[in-house]
Amino acid sequence: MDITEYMQDIGRRARAAARDMARASTAAKNRALAAIADNIDAAQSELLAANARDLADARARGLAEALIDRLTLNPARVTAISDGLRQIMTLPDPVGTITDLAYRPSGIQVGRMRVPLGVIGIIYEARPNVTADAAGLCIKSGNAAILRGGSEALHCNKALAACVHAGLAAAGLPADGVQIVGTTDRAAVGELLRMKENVDIIVPRGGQSLIDRVMQDSLVPVIKHYAGVCHVYIDDSADFEKTFAVALNAKTHRYGTCNTMETLLVSEAIAPRILPPLALLYRDKGVELRGCTATRAILPDAVLATDEDWRTEYLAPILSIRVVAGLDEAIDHIYRYGTGHTDAIMTEDITRARRFLREVDSSSVMVNASTRFADGYEYGLGAEIGISTDKLHARGPVGLEGLTSQKYVVLGDGHVRA
Amino acid sequence: MDITEYMQDIGRRARAAARDMARASTAAKNRALAAIADNIDAAQSELLAANARDLADARARGLAEALIDRLTLNPARVTAISDGLRQIMTLPDPVGTITDLAYRPSGIQVGRMRVPLGVIGIIYEARPNVTADAAGLCIKSGNAAILRGGSEALHCNKALAACVHAGLAAAGLPADGVQIVGTTDRAAVGELLRMKENVDIIVPRGGQSLIDRVMQDSLVPVIKHYAGVCHVYIDDSADFEKTFAVALNAKTHRYGTCNTMETLLVSEAIAPRILPPLALLYRDKGVELRGCTATRAILPDAVLATDEDWRTEYLAPILSIRVVAGLDEAIDHIYRYGTGHTDAIMTEDITRARRFLREVDSSSVMVNASTRFADGYEYGLGAEIGISTDKLHARGPVGLEGLTSQKYVVLGDGHVRA
Repeated sequence: MDITEYMQDIGRRARAAARDMARASTAAKNRALAAIADNIDAAQSELLAANARDLADARARGLAEALIDRLTLNPARVTAISDGLRQIMTLPDPVGTITDLAYRPSGIQVGRMRVPLGVIGIIYEARPNVTADAAGLCIKSGNAAILRGGSEALHCNKALAACVHAGLAAAGLPADGVQIVGTTDRAAVGELLRMKENVDIIVPRGGQSLIDRVMQDSLVPVIKHYAGVCHVYIDDSADFEKTFAVALNAKTHRYGTCNTMETLLVSEAIAPRILPPLALLYRDKGVELRGCTATRAILPDAVLATDEDWRTEYLAPILSIRVVAGLDEAIDHIYRYGTGHTDAIMTEDITRARRFLREVDSSSVMVNASTRFADGYEYGLGAEIGISTDKLHARGPVGLEGLTSQKYVVLGDGHVRA
Repeated sequence: MDITEYMQDIGRRARAAARDMARASTAAKNRALAAIADNIDAAQSELLAANARDLADARARGLAEALIDRLTLNPARVTAISDGLRQIMTLPDPVGTITDLAYRPSGIQVGRMRVPLGVIGIIYEARPNVTADAAGLCIKSGNAAILRGGSEALHCNKALAACVHAGLAAAGLPADGVQIVGTTDRAAVGELLRMKENVDIIVPRGGQSLIDRVMQDSLVPVIKHYAGVCHVYIDDSADFEKTFAVALNAKTHRYGTCNTMETLLVSEAIAPRILPPLALLYRDKGVELRGCTATRAILPDAVLATDEDWRTEYLAPILSIRVVAGLDEAIDHIYRYGTGHTDAIMTEDITRARRFLREVDSSSVMVNASTRFADGYEYGLGAEIGISTDKLHARGPVGLEGLTSQKYVVLGDGHVRA
């Protein structure tokens, strides 16, 4: 197979299908989502069988257990996938929404209409649920999708693709509205990243090496999720009870998620009082503590943190702690070491809260709340295709709206420019 | 001078200044704008002298008259520049605006705050007014700017830079908030386009060759204005009187602007009745008509249009005309040949108007109004840094809002994720 030719063909089909997807009625898109969900439920045994083949291959190739866990389907996970599609059905259709339609002094009415981006390329790793989630979000937002899943999940993704295509057909939508790259050749990714004419945006979902490769090679604009080195700063005005709850939840609710706190910053005025009880809570959960010199003066058991620690997304039961002079030094630390993901302040002082909200340049900035809230569902987006740490176009959790753009609409009555 | 080193230094300074610009109060930014405007008025004779040097160089190098006209300053143009800055002062400050702040079932409040993009690189050609306009828009939107004007305007741009820097200083803002690349070495542009770490977005303003070069080489995301092949489609339901006014205005109000109509599409049902009187109006203005075979059957004097004509932005008193079967063929033509800039329909039929608005995928889509309205001032943006024909981030006229992004803000009271 000539990979270039194969991918170019996918791109051309996607571009052609994108016109029909953009015009599709809300009812047709919802019919497609319902049909896909039903097809997935009905195909549960085929999906599990396909998954079993993928798992056997993965084990034979000696893949890591964590990866195998992400790859594994079971009846409950299949149901979660179809439920996810039905959830997307219930979300408002953003396409065609007109906002801010107002008369101008010239007499014309000017507003903005939300429109699909066009063709979305999604590159992801093992999880088969991304295939259905991404297809569902692209369908609902009126976009055509090109999905390039991990080679580990190929059989399962092909079985899911059959469910998706049958659902699109049932709703009278083009089969090419969602295409799954049916080759495990890695060159296909390179081709996808160069298809500027026929792909409007690339969304990579996966580990650092995938993101790095996409960033380096893509000629298509990318909405990416980079590392999440998230901070909680405990100001000396913080309420201790709230702080214990938030600082514990932000670190220990789940260790492997991008919105988990990795560095705790503590105002020196309260560090001697708040760090010892906090350390007990963390040690109770088995969290390893690493700290600056001032931290170690209070918590002698903490390992000395290096400059590298401040930059590290542990994704593990490890927490680095730094004592800072106050708000300014906390913001400076976040500016220097943060990744622009999610940062929180614990404070009862409204002036400092306002400064933190304004001055910390991250996709989510919080006051007295756990960084773990940085999530599309928690924010009310209904579903998310990822979390963007970029500034352009979409920032933070990206839902249906992030897969759309706005064009201007102008209504007149024969108006001309003077 | 080592250009790489020189530009890297500019990038680092811009990144550092961007923090202060982002934090600057609305009052400080307005003080800076007022001071810059006053400085420009006070420096009128120096600006004209610097411009005279540029003009002398340009004439010695045999630059085209059109370019020399764009380069030329006179007292009225200097006043227009300072007035433009005072106009930006009056615009609302987008930075810090919080929208959609609402309680979620978990108890947290989630909203979005508008924030500056960071560092904006603007690459432009002869017009010295862009230096002040772009500086003003970047200051008001809380961004740091790196301005790389055309070498033809270097003396004048340096004189304007002095006014800008004195104004920033008067308001307590960092001088590096607006930097002007002080070398005419073309390699500086290449460096700017590769400074991913320290430049957040590139806005090229100029002709096709500049845009092409930026598109090809930029590693930084670009907001660009591509060609404007704008269409007016006259449906058979159109009101003739409105159509005469709009079709004439869209083509003849100004020939050299991007929102000028280049192709007129006419429903075959009314072409025999409307084209002859329209042709008289165009001929009266000296507009050359080129047409498809069906057009020439009605207007025998029209030149036969080639496929190339449908793709051409004439920027001249030339109009191509195509007779189409109806709305579907008109939309197909725009899809195939358009540049996604601005397209209009003339119709009294609300169903066709709704379809045109929804299905034509251009940055501005209009009903019964002249394409010439596609403009930041006409849309109420107050000022524009350009018109984007891209879909991502900003589409259509780009004003202060297009130079910002939105981050999520979350307010809690010790809330944790369950």
